[in-house]
Amino acid sequence: MPHWTALVAEKKQRQLNSIPQDWLTCGLLNAREIEITNTSVDVLLERLASAEWTAIEVTTAFSKRAIVAHQLVNCLTEIFVDRALARAAELDDHLKKTGKIVGPLHGLPISLKDQICIKGLETIMGYASWIGKYADKNAVLVDVLIECGAVPFVRTNVPQTLMWPESFNSVFGRTPNPYNRSLTSGGSSGGEGALVALKGSPLGVGSDIGGSIRIPSAFCGLYSLRPSYGRVPYCGALNSLEGQDSVPSVFGPMTNSLSGVKVFMKAVVNAKPWLKDPLAVRKKWDEDEYNLADHGYGKDLCFGIMWDDGVRSLEITKAALQKAGHKVVDWKPIKHRLLQQVTMDILTAASTEDIMITTSVTGEPIIATMELDDTGFRPQNSGITAYQLWQLQKLRQNTRKEYLDHWEATASETGTGRPVDAIICPVAAYAAPPHGKNSYTNYTTVWNGLDYPATTFPVTTVDSTLDGQEPPHGFYDDFDQYVYEMYDPEKFKNAPEEAVIKMTEIVDAALTATK
Amino acid sequence: MPHWTALVAEKKQRQLNSIPQDWLTCGLLNAREIEITNTSVDVLLERLASAEWTAIEVTTAFSKRAIVAHQLVNCLTEIFVDRALARAAELDDHLKKTGKIVGPLHGLPISLKDQICIKGLETIMGYASWIGKYADKNAVLVDVLIECGAVPFVRTNVPQTLMWPESFNSVFGRTPNPYNRSLTSGGSSGGEGALVALKGSPLGVGSDIGGSIRIPSAFCGLYSLRPSYGRVPYCGALNSLEGQDSVPSVFGPMTNSLSGVKVFMKAVVNAKPWLKDPLAVRKKWDEDEYNLADHGYGKDLCFGIMWDDGVRSLEITKAALQKAGHKVVDWKPIKHRLLQQVTMDILTAASTEDIMITTSVTGEPIIATMELDDTGFRPQNSGITAYQLWQLQKLRQNTRKEYLDHWEATASETGTGRPVDAIICPVAAYAAPPHGKNSYTNYTTVWNGLDYPATTFPVTTVDSTLDGQEPPHGFYDDFDQYVYEMYDPEKFKNAPEEAVIKMTEIVDAALTATK
Repeated sequence: MPHWTALVAEKKQRQLNSIPQDWLTCGLLNAREIEITNTSVDVLLERLASAEWTAIEVTTAFSKRAIVAHQLVNCLTEIFVDRALARAAELDDHLKKTGKIVGPLHGLPISLKDQICIKGLETIMGYASWIGKYADKNAVLVDVLIECGAVPFVRTNVPQTLMWPESFNSVFGRTPNPYNRSLTSGGSSGGEGALVALKGSPLGVGSDIGGSIRIPSAFCGLYSLRPSYGRVPYCGALNSLEGQDSVPSVFGPMTNSLSGVKVFMKAVVNAKPWLKDPLAVRKKWDEDEYNLADHGYGKDLCFGIMWDDGVRSLEITKAALQKAGHKVVDWKPIKHRLLQQVTMDILTAASTEDIMITTSVTGEPIIATMELDDTGFRPQNSGITAYQLWQLQKLRQNTRKEYLDHWEATASETGTGRPVDAIICPVAAYAAPPHGKNSYTNYTTVWNGLDYPATTFPVTTVDSTLDGQEPPHGFYDDFDQYVYEMYDPEKFKNAPEEAVIKMTEIVDAALTATK
Repeated sequence: MPHWTALVAEKKQRQLNSIPQDWLTCGLLNAREIEITNTSVDVLLERLASAEWTAIEVTTAFSKRAIVAHQLVNCLTEIFVDRALARAAELDDHLKKTGKIVGPLHGLPISLKDQICIKGLETIMGYASWIGKYADKNAVLVDVLIECGAVPFVRTNVPQTLMWPESFNSVFGRTPNPYNRSLTSGGSSGGEGALVALKGSPLGVGSDIGGSIRIPSAFCGLYSLRPSYGRVPYCGALNSLEGQDSVPSVFGPMTNSLSGVKVFMKAVVNAKPWLKDPLAVRKKWDEDEYNLADHGYGKDLCFGIMWDDGVRSLEITKAALQKAGHKVVDWKPIKHRLLQQVTMDILTAASTEDIMITTSVTGEPIIATMELDDTGFRPQNSGITAYQLWQLQKLRQNTRKEYLDHWEATASETGTGRPVDAIICPVAAYAAPPHGKNSYTNYTTVWNGLDYPATTFPVTTVDSTLDGQEPPHGFYDDFDQYVYEMYDPEKFKNAPEEAVIKMTEIVDAALTATK
């Protein structure tokens, strides 16, 4: 086995070679390509379906813009434009011959986090030790997306181990924030966040076990959804901590437009992923849930707001919802510290062994921090026994029951006859911080521990006049968008993504109306 | 703390006192009570709803018969007829005043396995160490059943640890088979199996992590369903191996009539258990799935039969289905040995610690075998690490994917355009064996590892002329019913109980038509 640094050097050269050489020059998008790449997912799909734009055109435009983005923020890992264009040609041909689209995502380029295997391509996932790990078949989600007519075209960067909220590894390096390269793009789906923010992809797939979809979406100003367990197929993708099945990682969409979130979820769920993934939940897209049948059909909702220390944009959201006729009450979080702790204890029960065994193949260093000037061994708790793990899992189950009862008990306070319909809370205690400083994930991980689905949506950007530095976060740069999360009230395994999407549409519309 | 034997003696006296003393005499059911207790669940519910029979009458009849059954096969643990009659009186009163039933299970007595907590009662679960463990609230399922109008009235016996397919413990002793007391009733829901078989309860709730509903149902000739994970709420019940959440135990119905299986599942699922149990799947009863919309609406199905060594009743079932116009092909099992092994390895990852910590409180002996003449320490593997557990869980996930693909691939063989619609296979390699001999659970545990829902249904009884002893099982008594399992084709987490129930109705009707 060559030394890991030699493997990395060779891989980087191959990556460079995978970029069509005449696209490496800057400023090469024409007006139409710029128009295409600035278009939201729903409109893109309409124009593709009507053949106003061909799949080839759309794929070409996004591929070019992705390569520009990559040169700015180092967001790509595998680049397979040739395959994508071949698939796009097939789709155009099919539409021309039959007059019919292949599926609900006909012609839509989709980027994928660097763990979602594609036959014949490597899946490196930030490990030098995985250079040369070619997949012999597609992940189930890739098959599903292709069946729906989508066009996978690039994969995107992650942190080594996936277990950091920033994106840096020894193979592909670091993905900075496209709004300010001295700040982090977040993680672990930071490559997706940066690429989609630069409109190098209309929609990307990230994964989330503690905030890894929501954090980069928040730091890059995107709409996103962390679905509940098993709604989007995970089978056949690579992951760290494999076999840890108590707090599963989930896949979900990251996109510039809320329409993309709905389109993606509806398409994937209606493709019956349970026929290909034994862990996928057998539950069709439920239009009743989307129409908020259990929430008075979306009229006179009651939102709970979980404040942090006076963040301005929560106030904007509250005012917008009240103006739209909804009620807003304060959400009282209970046991968030315990939930974070027990969830992380479950995830790290054997993470040291997992990571050491993976990296020992080539002797690549385990990254100790995401800071710019330091790498080396990452200190972690040593492994625990299966019995100790069971006790953690039991504690978590009991706490989930307490939280559910806490939520149901709010029915006496809302005046709607129902418990609070949804919670609005921040994704992080701050906007995107500088590299190496994104250390606190408790605003997101708690919802993984509870398995409540959650969207993110952009509200406003930081204004240095209005948004003075808070003393406890004085060390963070005051640039970036604030993005908030909304949690839906169906707070259980397999809670309805349908409802959380519709409620986000309501919040988004209320915000737009007050702008 | 008194010695465990003193605790047991005192508990047994209290149990005896809980039986209405004038019901201890044999032969006390009158003709109407015998008619009531011989009636199937659907007809019982009709007569209760029409007030032809009162809830008091029905509860009294089953309570009396349960006490007779208990004196024959020692099947009860907690007996709370007084509460049940008080609840029955409320139900009668409600119906009289409003003309309306309280819910879909109005007035139906339901027995519960001795782990389903009821406020103010002990939950002993076969542990002397848990004598005096009074519940301060109901298990979620109890609340749901009461909300549906059911009348819980007794709880039923289990093995110490729940992890045996027979039912014996140091507190309540052994539950033999009602057809032949020298044979086992099975386990771990053996108390339910014996009670329901003797018609001391129209419907009981058992739990199943490796066959614990299906084995006693098979050995006692009942209909039953092992639902998939999270369909029936488990929250608030006690269990062994708590915190083991990779292969969860599930609750399901055991009953004399197939109608009981459907009625129970529909009522529980439509009560929205996810509002009370954070692990309950948010999935309503799906009438489309019950109508087999994905299976040609039940016409021209293709069943796969998994044969064992020439058991006669599989041949009966095959012939009946073919006569009803369905196709039957051989089912080729793959990796059943591996699935059994990895599932058991996950379950026993920390079972020694779990059981020793529980029993150490009073020093009660850990039961080493279910044989009549031996107790003492139960030898087990010592605990493994969390990392080793993750590797087992990963192996299981991968094997689930292989099995799913194997099933889907049968589409090329059925001639229906679909994969095999359902599998029919035995519950055990034998009918009920003598006490201590029920050592092989691979016909059931494999489906827990895969999380496929499964019913059991009675086919025929052993005929010593037709059913010669097979050489490998020559040591088993040749008396009892054979009961078979049917697995539904939706082979995933949250697979539709609706479909498996309907398919069982089809098989049952085909068998009835050929009798």
